[in-house]
Amino acid sequence: MKGEIISVGTELLLGQIVNTNAAFISQKLAELGIDVYYTTTVGDNAARLREVFTRSWQRSDLIILTGGLGPTMDDLTRETVADFLGLELVLNHDILAALRDYFASRGRVMTENNKKQAYFPAGAQILPNPNGTAAGVFLEKEGKVVVMLPGPPFEMVPMFENEVVPRLENLLAGRREVIKSRVLKLYGVGESQLETMLQDLLEKQSNPTLATLAKENEIQLRLTAKASLPERAEKLLAEMEAEIRKRVGQFVFAVDDETMEEVVGILLRQRGATISVAESCTGGLIGHRLTEVPGSSAYFQYGVVTYSNEAKEKLLHVDGELLRRFGAVSSQVARAMAAGVRELGKTSLGLAVTGIAGPEGGRPGKPVGLVYIALATQAEVHVESHNFRGPRPVIKKRASQAALNLVRKYLLGYLDEEKEDNE
Amino acid sequence: MKGEIISVGTELLLGQIVNTNAAFISQKLAELGIDVYYTTTVGDNAARLREVFTRSWQRSDLIILTGGLGPTMDDLTRETVADFLGLELVLNHDILAALRDYFASRGRVMTENNKKQAYFPAGAQILPNPNGTAAGVFLEKEGKVVVMLPGPPFEMVPMFENEVVPRLENLLAGRREVIKSRVLKLYGVGESQLETMLQDLLEKQSNPTLATLAKENEIQLRLTAKASLPERAEKLLAEMEAEIRKRVGQFVFAVDDETMEEVVGILLRQRGATISVAESCTGGLIGHRLTEVPGSSAYFQYGVVTYSNEAKEKLLHVDGELLRRFGAVSSQVARAMAAGVRELGKTSLGLAVTGIAGPEGGRPGKPVGLVYIALATQAEVHVESHNFRGPRPVIKKRASQAALNLVRKYLLGYLDEEKEDNE
Repeated sequence: MKGEIISVGTELLLGQIVNTNAAFISQKLAELGIDVYYTTTVGDNAARLREVFTRSWQRSDLIILTGGLGPTMDDLTRETVADFLGLELVLNHDILAALRDYFASRGRVMTENNKKQAYFPAGAQILPNPNGTAAGVFLEKEGKVVVMLPGPPFEMVPMFENEVVPRLENLLAGRREVIKSRVLKLYGVGESQLETMLQDLLEKQSNPTLATLAKENEIQLRLTAKASLPERAEKLLAEMEAEIRKRVGQFVFAVDDETMEEVVGILLRQRGATISVAESCTGGLIGHRLTEVPGSSAYFQYGVVTYSNEAKEKLLHVDGELLRRFGAVSSQVARAMAAGVRELGKTSLGLAVTGIAGPEGGRPGKPVGLVYIALATQAEVHVESHNFRGPRPVIKKRASQAALNLVRKYLLGYLDEEKEDNE
Repeated sequence: MKGEIISVGTELLLGQIVNTNAAFISQKLAELGIDVYYTTTVGDNAARLREVFTRSWQRSDLIILTGGLGPTMDDLTRETVADFLGLELVLNHDILAALRDYFASRGRVMTENNKKQAYFPAGAQILPNPNGTAAGVFLEKEGKVVVMLPGPPFEMVPMFENEVVPRLENLLAGRREVIKSRVLKLYGVGESQLETMLQDLLEKQSNPTLATLAKENEIQLRLTAKASLPERAEKLLAEMEAEIRKRVGQFVFAVDDETMEEVVGILLRQRGATISVAESCTGGLIGHRLTEVPGSSAYFQYGVVTYSNEAKEKLLHVDGELLRRFGAVSSQVARAMAAGVRELGKTSLGLAVTGIAGPEGGRPGKPVGLVYIALATQAEVHVESHNFRGPRPVIKKRASQAALNLVRKYLLGYLDEEKEDNE
């Protein structure tokens, strides 16, 4: 079954709101095993809506429209679609009564134009809307399905889940395929490098399919499996994931919606470890990210933002001599900061970042984007240097990601492996 | 000029990411006075992309594509569009060299497939990408304009603003009515309250038009003026802005893209003031926000994240007695933290936040969302208490916004006014 989504609303074309409806519906259709090849956004304009709908009618079996079911003159979805399909609009007295109650219960007068919302294409199923005045429409014609839903997500989402999904499941019963997908999030490897390591999988891919997506601070590997049974799809995903982890396992830091800070938090808890953070160029971002995780106070209690040398000396007891000889942005100072904050916080780990976030402050040998990250443990201090690109906020984000990943690598024992590799 | 946006990416059709690019570009085109009648999303599929592009080519003067410029096999935008337009893909040696540097500077090997990103349609202008490896494309043919941009917003947005907008402005110069808009950002007033205070303006509006939009941490007032000359449009905006500021001026904290942290930074510089921050429930977010501003080290050098009572006592010299008597989340402790961090940093101001971000930790009399914010100055300590709603990340954001706004209010002298109002 081929599905298609049409979002109706000039406010979308003006960019005044982001189209979350299309993403939500796409995801739900994918879960139902319905392929979506196109989504289109069109304004509150009958001619252009008709043009778009005509094309969808030609190429798709299921057309879902959102928006344009309101009471105002520029709400045209019902009228335009009914006209195209040659269906009359019929007054539904139950809905009209419901509208009357709705307004009465709010002590508001029901205006003439509200009646518009009680008219529906002949033969259509009416989808109740407990959260607003725009009832939805589900109609089947010539073996195709057309669904019309209100635009506001808080009305559309429940209507889709309670009214549309069950009807689609009925239609699909028997001829339905499940689609399951899983996202592996990788850090520390380039997209093209990753592709080379997985080339044969990417070339041979059919089921599950495999797609890479570069995000600001991670690369996502999306596995999507089709099968007649959910268990079978899950099995296909598990096999592919195992093969991928065999090759690039140490770069995989999270699965699906998991974040780096959540993963680090879980590892710290498992190891019964605690952490203190000293931030220079990240300015508090690492502490912010660690504390996005509920319960993080169990392992993170101490952070300092030491922008100035004075702060580094006073709070972290960084030797002034180091600062003068090597400069604040140096592996030596990063080491001292990490050891200092670990000492200050009396924690098992001390994490420190010092670098040049830019746009100013770069100099020969120390360009903008140069960042040193150090992790002090009881036994030693691990240091990494990075050259990040991008505007200041991006460099800060990337530095925070690398810092959290350093903690992850340490807790998983990868740092020792890296050392061996270097020996 | 009729514009159209094509978003390319199967991940969009699977609903795995929300299409914020289309909204961003739509808004920018609207500001340029370019009408957008359609936006379409299509997957990483050459045939379907070609079908969609063909239709756009027939009905629009400007086609902006995002996504599909990556190095991987399923990145097909460049190839598909060039093929449709009958343009050869030509190797650009500068970009190739830049790619080599990019990988070299990261100590990574540049694989064969990366070369793909150095090929561009013959005659196209190449748009540099400081934030990634996918350069953009701007090409004019048969009086139409085709723009290809990378998919990741952090690459697309700066490229659009720095490379695409100026080129479009050139093309449009002369032949259009100017549309100028200005966004006033307000904090500390509710949307309905604001609408009441501006009711007559909102009802009488024609040119400039006036629209309110409630965001997570601010209310936006968008003024949009049309005129034949830029100066005239600017004058209309200025008059309306003056009238609005007359009524709700103290709530207006920023204009257009300005952020609260930028405004606070500007005010601190103007006053020659410096600030230290002690964060509990915000976990570093305030420091992070302050340091998003280039040059913030001039006024922010000292921050501490003191989650534990021990940290509050040790670093900020908060009296243990206060902690025991009133608890860490209390106006008394907020005061002591603010004074303590001001002392620690030897700065003119000390800002402190202590609260319950949740989801756990609420108790009778101290619910989740209760946040105390204190600002210590040479003369006194100002304290505010707030009850924020929402999940943990939202409470953190709102607390950081209120804290920065407290600094803004102090630096603008509003706190004294508030006091008088209370007397």
